[in-house]
Amino acid sequence: MTQTHTTSQTRLERGKAALAAIDGEAGENVIASLAGIAPDFATYLLEFPFGDIYSRPDLSLRDREIATIAALCAMGTARPQLEVHIAAGLNVGLTRVEITEILMQMSVYAGFPAALNGIAAAKTVFARREDQGI
Amino acid sequence: MTQTHTTSQTRLERGKAALAAIDGEAGENVIASLAGIAPDFATYLLEFPFGDIYSRPDLSLRDREIATIAALCAMGTARPQLEVHIAAGLNVGLTRVEITEILMQMSVYAGFPAALNGIAAAKTVFARREDQGI
Amino acid sequence: MTQTHTTSQTRLERGKAALAAIDGEAGENVIASLAGIAPDFATYLLEFPFGDIYSRPDLSLRDREIATIAALCAMGTARPQLEVHIAAGLNVGLTRVEITEILMQMSVYAGFPAALNGIAAAKTVFARREDQGI
Amino acid sequence: MTQTHTTSQTRLERGKAALAAIDGEAGENVIASLAGIAPDFATYLLEFPFGDIYSRPDLSLRDREIATIAALCAMGTARPQLEVHIAAGLNVGLTRVEITEILMQMSVYAGFPAALNGIAAAKTVFARREDQGI
Amino acid sequence: MTQTHTTSQTRLERGKAALAAIDGEAGENVIASLAGIAPDFATYLLEFPFGDIYSRPDLSLRDREIATIAALCAMGTARPQLEVHIAAGLNVGLTRVEITEILMQMSVYAGFPAALNGIAAAKTVFARREDQGI
Amino acid sequence: MTQTHTTSQTRLERGKAALAAIDGEAGENVIASLAGIAPDFATYLLEFPFGDIYSRPDLSLRDREIATIAALCAMGTARPQLEVHIAAGLNVGLTRVEITEILMQMSVYAGFPAALNGIAAAKTVFARREDQGI
Repeated sequence: MTQTHTTSQTRLERGKAALAAIDGEAGENVIASLAGIAPDFATYLLEFPFGDIYSRPDLSLRDREIATIAALCAMGTARPQLEVHIAAGLNVGLTRVEITEILMQMSVYAGFPAALNGIAAAKTVFARREDQGI
Repeated sequence: MTQTHTTSQTRLERGKAALAAIDGEAGENVIASLAGIAPDFATYLLEFPFGDIYSRPDLSLRDREIATIAALCAMGTARPQLEVHIAAGLNVGLTRVEITEILMQMSVYAGFPAALNGIAAAKTVFARREDQGI
Repeated sequence: MTQTHTTSQTRLERGKAALAAIDGEAGENVIASLAGIAPDFATYLLEFPFGDIYSRPDLSLRDREIATIAALCAMGTARPQLEVHIAAGLNVGLTRVEITEILMQMSVYAGFPAALNGIAAAKTVFARREDQGI
Repeated sequence: MTQTHTTSQTRLERGKAALAAIDGEAGENVIASLAGIAPDFATYLLEFPFGDIYSRPDLSLRDREIATIAALCAMGTARPQLEVHIAAGLNVGLTRVEITEILMQMSVYAGFPAALNGIAAAKTVFARREDQGI
Repeated sequence: MTQTHTTSQTRLERGKAALAAIDGEAGENVIASLAGIAPDFATYLLEFPFGDIYSRPDLSLRDREIATIAALCAMGTARPQLEVHIAAGLNVGLTRVEITEILMQMSVYAGFPAALNGIAAAKTVFARREDQGI
Repeated sequence: MTQTHTTSQTRLERGKAALAAIDGEAGENVIASLAGIAPDFATYLLEFPFGDIYSRPDLSLRDREIATIAALCAMGTARPQLEVHIAAGLNVGLTRVEITEILMQMSVYAGFPAALNGIAAAKTVFARREDQGI
């Protein structure tokens, strides 16, 4: 999976393509949930994180998801987004074992409860994908 | 850089070797600073994070440092350790550009101040290494 | 809505009046939930935050709720209280649009997940009030 | 309740004994939940927090649980673990009144929402034990 | 102070104008500090927080700074940015008394240490401006 | 050291006595620092944390300081207050060894950097008292 963008794409187009590649259906659900209350925020979410940041060429999507999974696990304040990015990690090439290693490592930096809750999130995501036959 | 450990090594020996390879002199300074007040904690630090976690084979040290730099930048509560691990990232194969990408990405998950402060930490580390001719 | 207090009121009386004006029924539920386990804490909650702080004259209740909604959204650790204060914001004169702007802005200071979870809290509160015909 | 360990015990054996004494069944559920996804992390959890830290002689288990309950309440990011340690506090000699005092005090250091959510966790734990006739 | 933007302005132009109006010289120092290490991040900082968010018409800059000061004080992880935004609050119409009220109120939501450290930041900013005769 | 208060004392008087007993000179410096900017907040600080909370009889001051040191170490956002309360812990009967145990234990709940930074704070406080011949 590579990050390519032609300069003729708008940020919004680039962000939509990146969101689809990284987060898949879960990302589209987030965008849809904003429709009735903060549609401009859906646009910003597509444009800045996905159109700007994830589309930058100097770090692979796999490496970017390591960073995101680690940060969300360590912060411990964003369970829904941690689940989305554990699935995203699998989408861009991380294995279940690698994701579990990242979450275990967070015990060193954010404590055992953060790691345990991150591993519980992974368990939920892994089970959901098995149910879906992915 | 690979993580190898023979089972005949103790956790402490393995941790000392891992700390030296990853954190270099900065890690040894941390250990030394604990001597007068909490020497057992220096042992735990060598044994658990370095002897146990960083010595596990299923995630490379480069990937582990992506996770650590991201988490410490996002948490925003551990500037000294963030600087140590930005240097550690360079030690295990991350480039300055990659580290800067990780820190920039944290603006999405922990806000712009966290990213700005992380970039300031990187600037300090990069300058220090230039002074040292590394 | 103005903050007035005569010096003859006790802190507790002033706090009860402020809580009723700001948080309404949701605030009374919080007080009730403490009855069986920590009744003194219910008193402190009425006296200090509401009798002392929210009753001070130099900042309007509307401005105070901007501050509280922003802080709770950014911290990301207090969903029940964020919902109470989103409703409180509506009670003291903030519009739904203004509250949504505050929450969106938190993406800059605490990251997109904090803002998304804050917006989800607002969606819940706005829907609940529609169900109640408010 | 005292912390004793003979040097002939392994860290794992000592950790298992400490976990059983402190967390009881709740601790065993945590270990069991890791079996399918991160069994090594269950070992680390037994060895480092319980085999190393909680088994140290210079602070009583009662004092250690004061520290843990306070920290988890203040952080506000680990509700399941806060519940486990409120029960653990009761197991090692803290009274319900003392635990409630600790949680109330957290309003000073981490704000009223953290204290309120901590008290809600205690209410859940106390009720569960009454249902179990403990 | 009003937020106006004509659609013919680019996000970057709009962001530069907003940054100058809100943060003044302190904002320009932040941008300058990024030049040697992460110039694209300076562009993002101008474009998203300032060009997109602060330029939105449905919340005044004064109200936006209440939200930002409250959030940064409550988070307690971004002292340099808190100082910039206390000064920004004064720039867009908040009084010293109002800013102090916001910071005091944070004792309720994030604890007394967060409020004390926020008030210390305000003291620094207020003194600096007196030295500069502002 | 016991917590006694006669009902004829005001909260402010009780708070002043508690602050003097617990925090000593460091507490008075905090109060003094508020004089020019937020004198009412100094009053609240004396009245609520010290006059209300620390004066409650059902938990000893020694136990209360265990809770406060643990919470501030785990949060990692309030170094000045952590130092004040490490000294306060010594004032109310905790030993250096006990305080170091509490801080080490925080590695389990908030990560090794939080514990390392807490131990560094203790080192500073212990050295300062030796300089003062305490």
